[in-house]
Amino acid sequence: MDQTYLTSILDKVAKGEVSISAAVEQLKELPFQDIGFANIDEHRNIRTGHPETIYCEGKTPDQVAAIMDRMMESNANILATRASREVYDKVTEVAPEAIYHPEARVIVVQRNQTLRSDKIIAVVTAGTSDIPVAEEAALTAEVMGNKVDRIYDVGVAGIHRLFSKLDRIRAANVVIVAAGMEGALASVVGGLVDKPVIAIPTSVGYGANFGGISALLTMLNSCAAGVAVVNIDNGFGAGHLAAKINQL
Amino acid sequence: MDQTYLTSILDKVAKGEVSISAAVEQLKELPFQDIGFANIDEHRNIRTGHPETIYCEGKTPDQVAAIMDRMMESNANILATRASREVYDKVTEVAPEAIYHPEARVIVVQRNQTLRSDKIIAVVTAGTSDIPVAEEAALTAEVMGNKVDRIYDVGVAGIHRLFSKLDRIRAANVVIVAAGMEGALASVVGGLVDKPVIAIPTSVGYGANFGGISALLTMLNSCAAGVAVVNIDNGFGAGHLAAKINQL
Amino acid sequence: MDQTYLTSILDKVAKGEVSISAAVEQLKELPFQDIGFANIDEHRNIRTGHPETIYCEGKTPDQVAAIMDRMMESNANILATRASREVYDKVTEVAPEAIYHPEARVIVVQRNQTLRSDKIIAVVTAGTSDIPVAEEAALTAEVMGNKVDRIYDVGVAGIHRLFSKLDRIRAANVVIVAAGMEGALASVVGGLVDKPVIAIPTSVGYGANFGGISALLTMLNSCAAGVAVVNIDNGFGAGHLAAKINQL
Amino acid sequence: MDQTYLTSILDKVAKGEVSISAAVEQLKELPFQDIGFANIDEHRNIRTGHPETIYCEGKTPDQVAAIMDRMMESNANILATRASREVYDKVTEVAPEAIYHPEARVIVVQRNQTLRSDKIIAVVTAGTSDIPVAEEAALTAEVMGNKVDRIYDVGVAGIHRLFSKLDRIRAANVVIVAAGMEGALASVVGGLVDKPVIAIPTSVGYGANFGGISALLTMLNSCAAGVAVVNIDNGFGAGHLAAKINQL
Amino acid sequence: MDQTYLTSILDKVAKGEVSISAAVEQLKELPFQDIGFANIDEHRNIRTGHPETIYCEGKTPDQVAAIMDRMMESNANILATRASREVYDKVTEVAPEAIYHPEARVIVVQRNQTLRSDKIIAVVTAGTSDIPVAEEAALTAEVMGNKVDRIYDVGVAGIHRLFSKLDRIRAANVVIVAAGMEGALASVVGGLVDKPVIAIPTSVGYGANFGGISALLTMLNSCAAGVAVVNIDNGFGAGHLAAKINQL
Amino acid sequence: MDQTYLTSILDKVAKGEVSISAAVEQLKELPFQDIGFANIDEHRNIRTGHPETIYCEGKTPDQVAAIMDRMMESNANILATRASREVYDKVTEVAPEAIYHPEARVIVVQRNQTLRSDKIIAVVTAGTSDIPVAEEAALTAEVMGNKVDRIYDVGVAGIHRLFSKLDRIRAANVVIVAAGMEGALASVVGGLVDKPVIAIPTSVGYGANFGGISALLTMLNSCAAGVAVVNIDNGFGAGHLAAKINQL
Amino acid sequence: MDQTYLTSILDKVAKGEVSISAAVEQLKELPFQDIGFANIDEHRNIRTGHPETIYCEGKTPDQVAAIMDRMMESNANILATRASREVYDKVTEVAPEAIYHPEARVIVVQRNQTLRSDKIIAVVTAGTSDIPVAEEAALTAEVMGNKVDRIYDVGVAGIHRLFSKLDRIRAANVVIVAAGMEGALASVVGGLVDKPVIAIPTSVGYGANFGGISALLTMLNSCAAGVAVVNIDNGFGAGHLAAKINQL
Amino acid sequence: MDQTYLTSILDKVAKGEVSISAAVEQLKELPFQDIGFANIDEHRNIRTGHPETIYCEGKTPDQVAAIMDRMMESNANILATRASREVYDKVTEVAPEAIYHPEARVIVVQRNQTLRSDKIIAVVTAGTSDIPVAEEAALTAEVMGNKVDRIYDVGVAGIHRLFSKLDRIRAANVVIVAAGMEGALASVVGGLVDKPVIAIPTSVGYGANFGGISALLTMLNSCAAGVAVVNIDNGFGAGHLAAKINQL
Repeated sequence: MDQTYLTSILDKVAKGEVSISAAVEQLKELPFQDIGFANIDEHRNIRTGHPETIYCEGKTPDQVAAIMDRMMESNANILATRASREVYDKVTEVAPEAIYHPEARVIVVQRNQTLRSDKIIAVVTAGTSDIPVAEEAALTAEVMGNKVDRIYDVGVAGIHRLFSKLDRIRAANVVIVAAGMEGALASVVGGLVDKPVIAIPTSVGYGANFGGISALLTMLNSCAAGVAVVNIDNGFGAGHLAAKINQL
Repeated sequence: MDQTYLTSILDKVAKGEVSISAAVEQLKELPFQDIGFANIDEHRNIRTGHPETIYCEGKTPDQVAAIMDRMMESNANILATRASREVYDKVTEVAPEAIYHPEARVIVVQRNQTLRSDKIIAVVTAGTSDIPVAEEAALTAEVMGNKVDRIYDVGVAGIHRLFSKLDRIRAANVVIVAAGMEGALASVVGGLVDKPVIAIPTSVGYGANFGGISALLTMLNSCAAGVAVVNIDNGFGAGHLAAKINQL
Repeated sequence: MDQTYLTSILDKVAKGEVSISAAVEQLKELPFQDIGFANIDEHRNIRTGHPETIYCEGKTPDQVAAIMDRMMESNANILATRASREVYDKVTEVAPEAIYHPEARVIVVQRNQTLRSDKIIAVVTAGTSDIPVAEEAALTAEVMGNKVDRIYDVGVAGIHRLFSKLDRIRAANVVIVAAGMEGALASVVGGLVDKPVIAIPTSVGYGANFGGISALLTMLNSCAAGVAVVNIDNGFGAGHLAAKINQL
Repeated sequence: MDQTYLTSILDKVAKGEVSISAAVEQLKELPFQDIGFANIDEHRNIRTGHPETIYCEGKTPDQVAAIMDRMMESNANILATRASREVYDKVTEVAPEAIYHPEARVIVVQRNQTLRSDKIIAVVTAGTSDIPVAEEAALTAEVMGNKVDRIYDVGVAGIHRLFSKLDRIRAANVVIVAAGMEGALASVVGGLVDKPVIAIPTSVGYGANFGGISALLTMLNSCAAGVAVVNIDNGFGAGHLAAKINQL
Repeated sequence: MDQTYLTSILDKVAKGEVSISAAVEQLKELPFQDIGFANIDEHRNIRTGHPETIYCEGKTPDQVAAIMDRMMESNANILATRASREVYDKVTEVAPEAIYHPEARVIVVQRNQTLRSDKIIAVVTAGTSDIPVAEEAALTAEVMGNKVDRIYDVGVAGIHRLFSKLDRIRAANVVIVAAGMEGALASVVGGLVDKPVIAIPTSVGYGANFGGISALLTMLNSCAAGVAVVNIDNGFGAGHLAAKINQL
Repeated sequence: MDQTYLTSILDKVAKGEVSISAAVEQLKELPFQDIGFANIDEHRNIRTGHPETIYCEGKTPDQVAAIMDRMMESNANILATRASREVYDKVTEVAPEAIYHPEARVIVVQRNQTLRSDKIIAVVTAGTSDIPVAEEAALTAEVMGNKVDRIYDVGVAGIHRLFSKLDRIRAANVVIVAAGMEGALASVVGGLVDKPVIAIPTSVGYGANFGGISALLTMLNSCAAGVAVVNIDNGFGAGHLAAKINQL
Repeated sequence: MDQTYLTSILDKVAKGEVSISAAVEQLKELPFQDIGFANIDEHRNIRTGHPETIYCEGKTPDQVAAIMDRMMESNANILATRASREVYDKVTEVAPEAIYHPEARVIVVQRNQTLRSDKIIAVVTAGTSDIPVAEEAALTAEVMGNKVDRIYDVGVAGIHRLFSKLDRIRAANVVIVAAGMEGALASVVGGLVDKPVIAIPTSVGYGANFGGISALLTMLNSCAAGVAVVNIDNGFGAGHLAAKINQL
Repeated sequence: MDQTYLTSILDKVAKGEVSISAAVEQLKELPFQDIGFANIDEHRNIRTGHPETIYCEGKTPDQVAAIMDRMMESNANILATRASREVYDKVTEVAPEAIYHPEARVIVVQRNQTLRSDKIIAVVTAGTSDIPVAEEAALTAEVMGNKVDRIYDVGVAGIHRLFSKLDRIRAANVVIVAAGMEGALASVVGGLVDKPVIAIPTSVGYGANFGGISALLTMLNSCAAGVAVVNIDNGFGAGHLAAKINQL
């Protein structure tokens, strides 16, 4: 709680500069509006480098553009996930500097290029089909001011591919692993590195994959310590968490 | 269909040695009793080295002993799975040469030691908790006349353990992989060897393991070609299939 | 590990033909790139008759054609699964000898016709709707150099159909059974033959079939020993495993 | 609705023998108490040969005995399912003629031996472990006045066993099939007979059997027409329905 | 088994009219082709009034028409389920007398109008959305020679609707109940009638209905004895079974 | 039961104004058609302010218009849920005063504006994507004569938003909470208010949300007492129940 | 927020009776400790008649007794659910007036007998096995100051039982329905009464009941409007919510 | 790869101090035994402060003591999870300084007290029943050299409890949240803090909690960014990951 602000009000009351009833009005809303977590909401993104974020699924191009337009008033970076090209075309009308990453279906407005950590986040995928989800994670981490090393298509069916990239994976501070089908890569990486591993199950696969449940269960049951899991295909969540960890 | 037998009956009919109605009686039951698959049932175990098998779960010691007693009349090897020590104690009354494997909960009466293949079946486990299931598989394969190489506790969380045993695994003709938790070992082995891999999900684990479902889904979704799966904890089924393959 | 290669490097070091630091560079990458499993990846397909394989789902015709183009540089057979006709049309530009099997949605480029086994793989289906999956299995086995006997539409609802084909099924060295709906055929066949049975649950059915789960569970719980299961609709996996077994 | 009764009341009203308000009281309760389905409840069991039934699970021996005691006042047969021996011991105090069937865990008090149909209900099981459920079905059908032919242990893994009993199965008017594990027997029988088949999935099995779900799904998805399913292990329900059909 | 036929062959062998080897050839195929269940398959439909049936899902109009064309050679009635209007349009080219029931998506070719039972099958639905499934059941029963009484939209949310039709339901010999959403109607009807009840869960509903699983579980767990269940939306199966029961 | 009506019939019988057989005919149908709950069905909506309701999913525009046309004969308000604009366009032909709420996909014909309670129903959502479901609830409550306070987008990820609206939520007599994704808002609100809370899980979310199951389970397991749950996306059900409670 | 308290602090600051820093300290903790919802937590139970509640599952008798001892300091009623007799025996040491209801496994310390509503809560069960859960609901409602009418064993399999009690059910202000197995009673009651219905699925049943899931899904999918659902076996939650509604 | 070691071998080869074949032998085992990840396994625990860990579930007291005995040879801390008191009693024979934490069922042998981070890990629980799992997490983090702040019983049903501890939670560098039932606490905390949140679903709850699945799904679907999830009840995994993050 913002003691300075509280003190200043009380000071004015003590001095008779503010009436008691006016002070009551100001104090009444304090805990939820003017202090603490409320401020965080409004200002923290700029301070911490967190991007403003729009989840585009189920929003019309016009709606996304309108939200984007309002966000442009601040100086924060902006990230729009699950964005179609139609959305992007509309967005460029209010944010001409927006860049579209079609594979990840992500729009980025990067006004602040400051690096917030010297350390690297590795983003690793089992197959090429996991790349869109991995890119959502990578772009999220980058727009939050992190360096990302992409290491794609190193799944366990040909494990030598993984080992040939092990140096790069071990050089990272945080590792994101995106894998569908049976999702075994997260366990293998978790056993090979000594850094936090964030696993993203992807919905890649068919049959008894059940839209990613197979990979999700694999990752939750990982026999390697130090692995945590986000929701299926949730590249944004993994990238966001990795960035938070990397900037500690 | 057994043409010789058919011919002999018809021959007797033609010669009048057998009445038509008697021949009808004999032929009526032919397809299901005296020929083909019926014979297989009765005689094939001895011929092929398949053991007589008893699934003890839900049977009393007395019931198992009675079945065992009847089986002792043939010369086939006998295998009793899911057997408690109480069952074993009772069984020794009718089969004194029976040997009990407490970890696998398997009783073996091995009267025929003939090797039916020179090639090796590798039985691999991810952890030590998977060993009981693996032993059920290994003993099944052995009692069917196969050489087994046991390679235990080489799970992917410390993958160097697996690699240090890779030569032995690659030397095998068929590979059985038993793994619980996330079951990733089957995929990794499937990518490293060029032989048939039979995966057994085990119910080892906790939480979202769901009694082996996690490992089962992992194995069904394996990104490595050449992996097939048996039921959760079904060591007998895997051992039996591996033996069949090894003896082709 | 390739001892000859190791020895030659050390020999050159001993003779002073190669500097120590250059040898370190070469040895450093050895375990994952130049020896062992890495070589397998690059060369084993040709040696073993395994086809190069492309899983087309989620790839554009251009992407498949590009991959195919690169694969054409080797002499291996090539198999593309889950391929639409659009994909095929594009592929013919780089591989004019490619043949399309529309029911199985498979493209085959068969440059090597060598048979790798005299024995037969039987591919059996319960209904006509299971044929596309069965064809994927059959074509996979054939392109790997195996003889296939197709025995379709012999489901258990009219079991005499199965029995009239039993001779052919029993003549096979490995049996693949593809069945949807309740998937009972795998158990019945497993009880009638003495060879390895690979069961493919198909997503054929409706209502409480749940996209193949019903058949999958049936097959996993098969009361017949010697049956192993692959993923729902995974004809490629079954064909690949059957070929491996058949060529042992 | 019982028009005779209605008419007699109105007749008395017309004649002034019953006051209007008394008639209103009688008529008010008519639809639910004195006519139609209410009577069925009280009297139909005796008329139709349906037994009074007690489901003992979760009831104390004293409670079951008290219910039994009250039921003894009618002349109907009595059936108590899921009864332990403790329950039976207590029941004999009020119903000395009660007979206990330990395998089926059923108590029968059969005071009426009348056969209500000349036709036979076949009760078929896949394995010996399915017999307790099958016995619950068979005893239910018998206590309702039907002839039952028990045909046990004819599962599809050794299908010649089934065929050797086919004459008896086909001779029945209604067929009950109890099977656990993969439950394939119901489909096979459904394809071989031309009579109604009632399938009971049993909870026999392990691994991915899931307490009978595997067999349940198999039976619901049966490719054979004319098969309906009751709940897992619900021998009583199947026996009751079979009796109803057999007595049409 | 057809003893007359067997006897005639043996008689010819005894008389020397047929050579032994020719007789062997004839007998070899007997069990599966020329006698018993095989004959049933070919001829039983006409004898019993069972229709020839085509499940159209996943078949092209041309394929359905070709099958229909072949079936027209017999005199049996023909039923095609899950048929689109496109299928129907094609079918009329080979079967001009075919009639299309668009709601049930059923095509009927009724060449034989013989009633096979005087008794009535009631088909009851909870709501109007269940009618397509109910119609598939009703038409199946009718084409098999049964009288059907349709009683639609009498679900338990307004239970007086059910009671006002109770006389008609109780007048039936067999009752089919189709219900989606929570499927409670089957239990209520099962408690009110003393005849076999066949319950069809329909996929009508939303949210936690899970495509019919809710109704399916409700019906399997019905507290009313004498209720059996078919697969979700399986109107054909229910109608077929009801017809079998009604014609006993 | 309507005693007055009963008495009047009996009175006429006593006076000889009505024959006994005519009275029997009238009484026979009484319990289900002319009295009690039957009347409720026909008349209760007008008396209680309950709207006539049409669930449009799966009905053609013509069918909805026809039902609407018949409903217009009464004076009750009419509510059509899950209505597309096509349906609305057709409906305006028979009900020109109908108003369409596109977000909620609801059509309202409000002929009766009477408020049936002075108290307020708060409708609260976690996110903006939950608004369509919330609007269905709000409009249902309004058309039944209740005042609604909409408090949208106050999910727990930014809990200060919720607290800033707490006064309004606490001022309500009944609270509806619609939330998707993890559905935590219902528990938090349930802990903060002392009024009945009706929770609607919505199908908003992705990955392991499973179409609303995640939110459904969250709400069922709520650690806050006084929370009950309706089906996924069932805004109508929640609004209807809230109205009933609010009008007690 | 408690404006009086706020005003009194500010008044003292204005008068110089309290230092600014002391006032800051007091205000800092205000929002969560001394005002608003915090007070509710501490005092609301007494004001509203809500009982103090202990969920005993997983707590030792000593722990429950200790909590009870502390609760005895207030004058609120106390309710302990899921309490074994061992727990009760220990509790009587600190709360001699505690009464144990063994069937419901509930301990009640009722120090305040005030009725908080004249209206009645009906608690209805389908079977006798549902009574323990229903009793937990009834006792909860009673200890909160409500009159309860228990109407047990009126399930839909014998629906006349329900109708003979319909007057009592309709006389209630709120209706709780507890049902296991298929749970259809909630829908039927929901269609017959015009008051809020709270449905409790119970875990009573077997087979595909899945510990109450069948009843839960039935109730969620109820075709009757005005039904809401609590967790499986959650009698306390239903009773608590019913009391809240009844006291509005 | 350890270049120094490689260089030294090659140097000896160059100098002729080691024969080529001896060098081959040494190099052959290099990749998996003497370098890289192998070394990590053996030595990393001491270097990094990671404890040696034993998962006791399914191991006998003798087995655990034997493993512990061998581990005592190193100087690392030792952690044994899921340990019963019987296990502890046996362990004290080989490790007298071992301390048992009965609630968490954890044994700790802490020989190294070095703090590896100045920052704090907050461990937060929703209820008192979640404490055992939380303690496993807290003790794991402590034995790895971290300071832990335990903040228990602050679930969302009384959210003021959470807010009164918010300062302490926000002061932490990493936050672990353990919650059962509906698991909503993770989302609320995730929205209030700007640090990484690791969520542990616990199996606390009943009814539709499904052994922790409800909480697991809630946490995976959390609407708050920056939350990752470990397996149900996996306190060790969460503590281990939190320690890794805290020591970055």
